[in-house]
Amino acid sequence: MRILVVNVNTTAAMTAGIARAASEAASAGTEIIGLTPTFGAESCEGNVESHLAALGVMDAVLGYAGDYDAVIQAGYGEHGREGLQELLDVPVVDITEAGAQLAMMLGRRYAVVTTLDRTVPLIEDRLLLAGLDRHCTSVRASGMPVLDLEAHPDRAVAAIAEAAAEAVETDRAEVIVLGCGGMADLTETIVGRCAVPVVDGVAAAVRLAEALVGLGLTTSKVRTYAPARPKRLDGWPFAAAAGASPSDPQTVTRHDPVTRAS
Amino acid sequence: MRILVVNVNTTAAMTAGIARAASEAASAGTEIIGLTPTFGAESCEGNVESHLAALGVMDAVLGYAGDYDAVIQAGYGEHGREGLQELLDVPVVDITEAGAQLAMMLGRRYAVVTTLDRTVPLIEDRLLLAGLDRHCTSVRASGMPVLDLEAHPDRAVAAIAEAAAEAVETDRAEVIVLGCGGMADLTETIVGRCAVPVVDGVAAAVRLAEALVGLGLTTSKVRTYAPARPKRLDGWPFAAAAGASPSDPQTVTRHDPVTRAS
Amino acid sequence: MRILVVNVNTTAAMTAGIARAASEAASAGTEIIGLTPTFGAESCEGNVESHLAALGVMDAVLGYAGDYDAVIQAGYGEHGREGLQELLDVPVVDITEAGAQLAMMLGRRYAVVTTLDRTVPLIEDRLLLAGLDRHCTSVRASGMPVLDLEAHPDRAVAAIAEAAAEAVETDRAEVIVLGCGGMADLTETIVGRCAVPVVDGVAAAVRLAEALVGLGLTTSKVRTYAPARPKRLDGWPFAAAAGASPSDPQTVTRHDPVTRAS
Amino acid sequence: MRILVVNVNTTAAMTAGIARAASEAASAGTEIIGLTPTFGAESCEGNVESHLAALGVMDAVLGYAGDYDAVIQAGYGEHGREGLQELLDVPVVDITEAGAQLAMMLGRRYAVVTTLDRTVPLIEDRLLLAGLDRHCTSVRASGMPVLDLEAHPDRAVAAIAEAAAEAVETDRAEVIVLGCGGMADLTETIVGRCAVPVVDGVAAAVRLAEALVGLGLTTSKVRTYAPARPKRLDGWPFAAAAGASPSDPQTVTRHDPVTRAS
Amino acid sequence: MRILVVNVNTTAAMTAGIARAASEAASAGTEIIGLTPTFGAESCEGNVESHLAALGVMDAVLGYAGDYDAVIQAGYGEHGREGLQELLDVPVVDITEAGAQLAMMLGRRYAVVTTLDRTVPLIEDRLLLAGLDRHCTSVRASGMPVLDLEAHPDRAVAAIAEAAAEAVETDRAEVIVLGCGGMADLTETIVGRCAVPVVDGVAAAVRLAEALVGLGLTTSKVRTYAPARPKRLDGWPFAAAAGASPSDPQTVTRHDPVTRAS
Amino acid sequence: MRILVVNVNTTAAMTAGIARAASEAASAGTEIIGLTPTFGAESCEGNVESHLAALGVMDAVLGYAGDYDAVIQAGYGEHGREGLQELLDVPVVDITEAGAQLAMMLGRRYAVVTTLDRTVPLIEDRLLLAGLDRHCTSVRASGMPVLDLEAHPDRAVAAIAEAAAEAVETDRAEVIVLGCGGMADLTETIVGRCAVPVVDGVAAAVRLAEALVGLGLTTSKVRTYAPARPKRLDGWPFAAAAGASPSDPQTVTRHDPVTRAS
Repeated sequence: MRILVVNVNTTAAMTAGIARAASEAASAGTEIIGLTPTFGAESCEGNVESHLAALGVMDAVLGYAGDYDAVIQAGYGEHGREGLQELLDVPVVDITEAGAQLAMMLGRRYAVVTTLDRTVPLIEDRLLLAGLDRHCTSVRASGMPVLDLEAHPDRAVAAIAEAAAEAVETDRAEVIVLGCGGMADLTETIVGRCAVPVVDGVAAAVRLAEALVGLGLTTSKVRTYAPARPKRLDGWPFAAAAGASPSDPQTVTRHDPVTRAS
Repeated sequence: MRILVVNVNTTAAMTAGIARAASEAASAGTEIIGLTPTFGAESCEGNVESHLAALGVMDAVLGYAGDYDAVIQAGYGEHGREGLQELLDVPVVDITEAGAQLAMMLGRRYAVVTTLDRTVPLIEDRLLLAGLDRHCTSVRASGMPVLDLEAHPDRAVAAIAEAAAEAVETDRAEVIVLGCGGMADLTETIVGRCAVPVVDGVAAAVRLAEALVGLGLTTSKVRTYAPARPKRLDGWPFAAAAGASPSDPQTVTRHDPVTRAS
Repeated sequence: MRILVVNVNTTAAMTAGIARAASEAASAGTEIIGLTPTFGAESCEGNVESHLAALGVMDAVLGYAGDYDAVIQAGYGEHGREGLQELLDVPVVDITEAGAQLAMMLGRRYAVVTTLDRTVPLIEDRLLLAGLDRHCTSVRASGMPVLDLEAHPDRAVAAIAEAAAEAVETDRAEVIVLGCGGMADLTETIVGRCAVPVVDGVAAAVRLAEALVGLGLTTSKVRTYAPARPKRLDGWPFAAAAGASPSDPQTVTRHDPVTRAS
Repeated sequence: MRILVVNVNTTAAMTAGIARAASEAASAGTEIIGLTPTFGAESCEGNVESHLAALGVMDAVLGYAGDYDAVIQAGYGEHGREGLQELLDVPVVDITEAGAQLAMMLGRRYAVVTTLDRTVPLIEDRLLLAGLDRHCTSVRASGMPVLDLEAHPDRAVAAIAEAAAEAVETDRAEVIVLGCGGMADLTETIVGRCAVPVVDGVAAAVRLAEALVGLGLTTSKVRTYAPARPKRLDGWPFAAAAGASPSDPQTVTRHDPVTRAS
Repeated sequence: MRILVVNVNTTAAMTAGIARAASEAASAGTEIIGLTPTFGAESCEGNVESHLAALGVMDAVLGYAGDYDAVIQAGYGEHGREGLQELLDVPVVDITEAGAQLAMMLGRRYAVVTTLDRTVPLIEDRLLLAGLDRHCTSVRASGMPVLDLEAHPDRAVAAIAEAAAEAVETDRAEVIVLGCGGMADLTETIVGRCAVPVVDGVAAAVRLAEALVGLGLTTSKVRTYAPARPKRLDGWPFAAAAGASPSDPQTVTRHDPVTRAS
Repeated sequence: MRILVVNVNTTAAMTAGIARAASEAASAGTEIIGLTPTFGAESCEGNVESHLAALGVMDAVLGYAGDYDAVIQAGYGEHGREGLQELLDVPVVDITEAGAQLAMMLGRRYAVVTTLDRTVPLIEDRLLLAGLDRHCTSVRASGMPVLDLEAHPDRAVAAIAEAAAEAVETDRAEVIVLGCGGMADLTETIVGRCAVPVVDGVAAAVRLAEALVGLGLTTSKVRTYAPARPKRLDGWPFAAAAGASPSDPQTVTRHDPVTRAS
């Protein structure tokens, strides 16, 4: 099984990190292909950047020449999942939704913790549209921007763990969904503070994509995600229009022993 | 007062029609500028086209060199209003939302009638996100695609009026919001069939934009629509990246007598 | 265009203030007529007074002999808008709802700030019935009664601005709707504290009424607001039954230059 | 125990019928006092009449000189219960709400059947405000006006039973709440058609009032129903202002044997 | 009238207390029969114990040989009311729901106060399923387990009253529903702290059962609570399967004077 | 990985069918153990049977002596998942919820089709409690009881496919969740009729359980599913109390080739 994991920003290093995380979460035999959009923002933290990401992701997937069984959009709260579902027959999984779905199976209420306050509305809107908001007790921001996180990982981990603890104690969350990624210590620190399960959206998305592919399920093509009617599109695909060379797909294959005893 | 009315597709003739409708709805002294995206679909009837429209509209507004007091996004159910609000300080009005808002002031429940079934979910999602869904009793499609409408206007008007009548009789709508445009006979025929007020989104948006501008109100810049943090955007603006020449703004000034007696 | 702005209490000085505020908000050429009920409470701060206001407003409108194009009910959270819509064909605008509607166009969540705790439920119920509650994050009271406000305007302004600041910081409001009126410094102080748009319900209602009238839209007469069936009403209209002389309409015409450049 | 049952219209014959029904539903030892407003409509079927009823009922209760333990507002979908709760310490029961409450104990979903289509919104709004709407599957109208019902009782019963049957079969109602009264054959016919429990609002209200009084429970006086602040009310009470003589209370005591074996 | 009041745990002393409370709340002439399950937990404070209670209560009722007019399930937040309604024709009342229903008649928002945090979700779920959650502003736990309450009644009363006060002051509750029982001083202390009505679920259930029985209303037998289709049940009733001797019904008859003056 | 799949009724043949379906849906290397309750109903189609199933399933799991990584409760709309989560640390998956979760990833609205009308409320309640109801457009019953299905499989398949078609055409479902099982032709026939994805709850549950186990996620033990406080349980476990011999676990191992190419 081959799953495309598409970053929502143009920073190839982040794609590599996401693909690595996806690969670690994948079942044996699943091949992860990381794609980076050829246009858009270096990081997504707002509405315009999210709209850019929607197209950047679609463009990256359409520009990928190989075969694949599912596509994961690896951004928290970004637009575009519906567009991918319209374009493709294979399952499409959004990491914001995937994290929420697994969280709902582990506890009665979950909270999402993210970095900046300005991404909270985007995550809330995505959960609302997906019908996954009812058991979301809060979306909390640590207040630290992404780049500060990288500069000061210890403080970042502490700030996010603090937001998670408030979600558990004040908002009555029983599960935490990470709405930000890339820090190895994060899950461990939160579990140490709150003793609740911590769900990473990328990992959840990989396993949910595997589940759908494994069952032979594909996106419904009646009504909402029916193929577009044939018509003239100017300036599409953007990558071609802009003369960009395709981004370099990053392939990460899981080489674990293929059978794990129960 | 100058209001930009931005078409969501690349068909300049539609922009002209929308700008004309906007101008007819405008108060005396309001100048309407119609803009056409330089990229995107020739008509918007689905998710991908809607995501393209989101960026096409932002690109068209950013590429407009003149002054303006408000922006109207003239598409039914399209993405992107939030992005415009983030980019701009002046009021931004989406016609799907504007029609719903005025309709809610005229009756207890409203229905939206549109053309194709596949646009229904997009309109429903927009109303849900805007918090305007509670009094929406249904979004009904006539089943006729846009181009057929132009080829057979009589049948198109009849089909949409039929959907409106079902909304009034079956779904208990008391007001009809048009989720499609450009036919002079439409309002008249619906009123003849159902005797309910008919709200056109473009007209509603113009008057709401005038209301906001007239009161000196601007978009809130705390949290959701705060200006983006400075960062590198690759391939933006698209128009420039793709080497497109700017679309030709269509200016329509309302030359009515400036005072109308009450 | 002539708009009746009907106070919900019997204090003529308040009517004058409301009419003045309405006039300042109105477009050039709009004439504002302030009406005061001939019966009811000197100020409305609860359920009984609100029910009295409902009838007092209807009575005042029915007793007005001149022509008019729209009616504004100028009370926060009062009953009666539905009755006016049943009685009249012209548009009817409630200031509680009008403030919410414009606020929803300026930010993702709004809060209402009002004076007394006991008016909070009335405002919440009005927003719920109008389907405008989904984006209302809180209705907060400053705890100061109306008359104390007049005696100590500085403290009143400070208390309301404090409630607004809490709404922005704690409840995540992005726009403030004033649920109380008459203080010139209020908007300025709130903007100084919170840097969010502040919407005044009276001003919003005037512009929304102008929008509806300008588009030729009238209240739907199917079902909810259909004219009453003919029947015997004892003791109605009350003003006549009680032998009251009609209240003195206060006319305020806006004499601004009629065209403002964009 | 003495319960005031207040009609919402000025037709004394209807008061007598309601008081008789209330008395038949009452426990042994409960005394029913029927009150008729001195002003308002001869029957309530719309918004204005409902606002009149709100004040007419309050006026009638305030004008009653005797002692009482609870008050029932006997109109379907009328305004005013909140005002009574503010005025009084004793329990106040609205028949629309009372019928819904008992119905919710007997089946998973209930429907209300009423006479005219124009009263449907009023009933829906009352249930929404009371938080009793979630299990209400529909409010259906038979389409026959009240007076026609009296002229053609057989046809009226058939029409209402037909609406009830549709609610059970189409809307999946498991209990029917009567939103109209005064016909002896109604319950029997509906049960014959649908085999579901039929709840009469007046009867339900009497038993709920008895329950509250029996437990010594009174209306909460913090916040929403706190006593009004002292202030000048012009033209109140209306009955006195209009020089009306008080309506004649109709007393109906239940003289059944006081103990019924279980 | 004879009402079965069924404890949800196996502690006979608690059954006696509940039956005594029920009897004190009952009308004259109502006979209360307390039943104790023959299996289950000594106290119910979680999901498994609640599922056991569901069957224990059904088993106890089926094992009762006498006649009865209604059944009360006397546990806060327990499962099983739907099963009893399926088994029986007579009215079935759950005390969690009964308390909420009467509370909704006394104030605009109510809160439930209970003992342990782990019972909060069960109570919330029961109110959600019953459609009684909309006016519930919070379910608060005092944090003290049941047995500690008995060991230290003063501290227990203080802790619960503290939770009630927070519900009134912070959550804007206007009525308190007791989600725990057995302490005579509780209501008095809460009223002393908060001056709001306090509703006990057992008392409310008795009066609501009386109301339903008094009106001749029975559970709807269409769809949700229709009698089970005939089929083989292994190991049912459990009491017989486990060889248990039937629990000893505790009869408490109310011998008050049968008529109380109003 | 070893997953217990627990039937909710006592019919061992059904357990075998469910285990076989689970095994076919499982990934290579996953071992499926089918368990049958030792008490309860031969088939579950109502509230009492569902409450029995809740305990029967818990009893069967507690009585299973081997190791396992996850538990699936294989009944549509049954009670008890929360109890299992309280008892166990390993993930617990309910098939009603699992089917809904995967369906929500494949289309905008899903419908559940089941056999008897009386199971519809149970399924609706389960989805409501799980917060998965927002995108469920309907739960439809074919009207044919389970045993008739077995006697007349062709008619049964036709009836369920008919219900599915109505859900797609009338209720606008884009995905069908099977709320009944055991018929090989069902999916094929529905896809032939409606061309929408068909999700089987058992298969979905297996893959979701695998996903959770694969990620090392376990049930949150704060608050709702915290281990029960130690206390005396009479008559538990039931199987032991009733002297039943443990049911015979049915093991079905998936022996597919362990690696499938993407």
